Amino acid sequence: MNYDQIFLNALKSVKDEGRYRIFMDIERKKGDFPNAIWRCEKGSSDIIVWCGNDYLGMGQHPSVIYEMEEALHKVGAGAGGTRNISGTNHYHVLLEKELADLHGKESALLFTSGYVSNEATLSTLGKLMPDLIIFSDELNHASMIQGIIHSGCKRHVFRHNDLAHLEQLLEASDPDAPKLIAFESIYSMDGDVAPIKEFCDLAERYNALTYIDEVHAVGMYGARGGGVAEQEGLMDRLTIIEGTLGKAYGLMGGYITASDLIVDAIRSFASGFIFTTSISPVIAAGAVASIKHLKSSSLERELHQKNAALLKQKMKDASLPVMPSESHIVPLLVGDAVICKQASDMLLKEYGIYVQPINYPTVARGTERLRFTPSPVHSEEMMDHLVTSLKAVWARLDIDKYASAA
Amino acid sequence: MNYDQIFLNALKSVKDEGRYRIFMDIERKKGDFPNAIWRCEKGSSDIIVWCGNDYLGMGQHPSVIYEMEEALHKVGAGAGGTRNISGTNHYHVLLEKELADLHGKESALLFTSGYVSNEATLSTLGKLMPDLIIFSDELNHASMIQGIIHSGCKRHVFRHNDLAHLEQLLEASDPDAPKLIAFESIYSMDGDVAPIKEFCDLAERYNALTYIDEVHAVGMYGARGGGVAEQEGLMDRLTIIEGTLGKAYGLMGGYITASDLIVDAIRSFASGFIFTTSISPVIAAGAVASIKHLKSSSLERELHQKNAALLKQKMKDASLPVMPSESHIVPLLVGDAVICKQASDMLLKEYGIYVQPINYPTVARGTERLRFTPSPVHSEEMMDHLVTSLKAVWARLDIDKYASAA
Repeated sequence: MNYDQIFLNALKSVKDEGRYRIFMDIERKKGDFPNAIWRCEKGSSDIIVWCGNDYLGMGQHPSVIYEMEEALHKVGAGAGGTRNISGTNHYHVLLEKELADLHGKESALLFTSGYVSNEATLSTLGKLMPDLIIFSDELNHASMIQGIIHSGCKRHVFRHNDLAHLEQLLEASDPDAPKLIAFESIYSMDGDVAPIKEFCDLAERYNALTYIDEVHAVGMYGARGGGVAEQEGLMDRLTIIEGTLGKAYGLMGGYITASDLIVDAIRSFASGFIFTTSISPVIAAGAVASIKHLKSSSLERELHQKNAALLKQKMKDASLPVMPSESHIVPLLVGDAVICKQASDMLLKEYGIYVQPINYPTVARGTERLRFTPSPVHSEEMMDHLVTSLKAVWARLDIDKYASAA
Repeated sequence: MNYDQIFLNALKSVKDEGRYRIFMDIERKKGDFPNAIWRCEKGSSDIIVWCGNDYLGMGQHPSVIYEMEEALHKVGAGAGGTRNISGTNHYHVLLEKELADLHGKESALLFTSGYVSNEATLSTLGKLMPDLIIFSDELNHASMIQGIIHSGCKRHVFRHNDLAHLEQLLEASDPDAPKLIAFESIYSMDGDVAPIKEFCDLAERYNALTYIDEVHAVGMYGARGGGVAEQEGLMDRLTIIEGTLGKAYGLMGGYITASDLIVDAIRSFASGFIFTTSISPVIAAGAVASIKHLKSSSLERELHQKNAALLKQKMKDASLPVMPSESHIVPLLVGDAVICKQASDMLLKEYGIYVQPINYPTVARGTERLRFTPSPVHSEEMMDHLVTSLKAVWARLDIDKYASAA
């Protein structure tokens, strides 16, 4: 048995497809986002980050930094245990109250990441209801797919945001079986938005529970940052709302909000929740500050939308292949993994622009892209520099021919 | 379909068994560990934490706090993305180097928690080697069990630390199939230690890979904190060493260390690694400081062992039912879930002692226990107070009759 050969073969397949990942060593500059330092073997250079998920720049917000520093000096570095065994800190309690309030739900439950919140919650729902049938959007995030697979339940995958297909599947299912419809509000790689109201209507008609992933929307949509469901006045119609502290709120960690009863059940049965050290109180304190700020301030949200619209327009005016997106996410189609990586490398090394190539398995093969996330901290000058640089790279690599072939 | 009734029934079963969990709201006092404040509906009171997993008190170490504060002000609160998409910060790179060096391996890989590191690594090994046979100790942690189940591989569970049983299973298996032996060094609820050398011998004889979970040993054993495998000079014989930053190092997060090749394969294929926001650079900076300190200072380790031995002796002298433990973990047998919870409540409310009841599913039914984790910050005076209080509670609840019946 040659174990090394097995691992080498697996990696070779990734390399052959041009989608082997090299992590860029980045040091962001607090107070100066989106400026950062890129370190490589040849030394370091100044870059502008164009692909971060700290969508509003909250990771450098003074009140977030202040509250984290306060907590660090008050209670120390870590939580010191699992939630049940000495690891529930007062900051966790405050944060869960803040989150429940954000989504108008009775309770909230913190997880170490958004990935874990999806995986643990969906798999546990299946354990609690073994005859549950899960209806899952085909473009749901990897963490939702894992949770649904691990639930062991029967599942039906419906075509992306396709109400007719979903209804067809619901109609064909046992009317007496428990059902769950699982979807995202904003899909992070395309930037399109789910028909949440219509999903809720179908759920009511067929007596199904609903599970919405709002990780790319919380903080950014709704009058208080409650996500697309808040913006559309639909939070009370959704059974479980899942979100993250790792994107617009600028930190890390994930959560669900729901009724007291459902949160209590997940809390009591989810292996991925029970058997893990709780998140650092320093992180929890920062999250409380970040959520509170974005509940009362809409300035960041307005500037975010304005900048996203402006960048899309500038790209369109420059005839760059912006993919349709209804949200703040700006994807540019390349259509080939190798060229996508080359474009990204060229932008980084020659233009000081950092944007990762997005390849399979994050997106389907043939739809490889560069994905830009303009934020309130990106200036119009930075946008103009970006568009000029992209035009140059597009011409040098003759990218249009790949995009049109895709 | 009455969904609420399903959740109510599930919770009722937990409540009926007396193992419904109520999280204690604790606020640790940095600089004054193990003292903390307990908050409940009636107000707040001072307590001593006796069940934390911040085994060495590193969560309040000045160099850890200092480095976290520095990082917070330099780069901000969160990482801003997944490891591949703008979320690799220079602190992650430094931390992975530190971890690889700690275990004498070529590479290391950070995860958001120890749970995720086990689940993601073990399940991914199975995906890369579909005909892998996994030999798993029956007392392995929930996260290892989940990873092994999710791997989809054939698995054999061997009796706890039973070499003869493991060899029997190895011998009966296809000699040409890839194999993995998965175990922990220190089992957290009993405190016993695995026969690591003998496991390695068997692995060599049957050409199997080895996977060791050292989460309850890293920082605490070995001349530089590399765990029991370092102490016994066995690190180079283990294929993958897994550990945590959430216990002795005082923070949060998990990791594996192994060859460049294996780490590269896990990095490239593990869903639970790829699709998640990387840990905050503030946490990573603190972890680097904590590991560095415990590489050069053995003071904390010595005091830790001394205090654990002293507490065990004091409990034995007082005829308290200390369970056999070779390590720093001090379990006291109760043998009944309801009484275990009553004892814990009484200690908290009347004696200012915080120790969680450990019930099923964390331990087998009938072996319910109180689990103490003496640390370098627990004084002899605190131990005497603990033992006196335990004697009183033992008498008041007549606990000996449950322990002897178990």
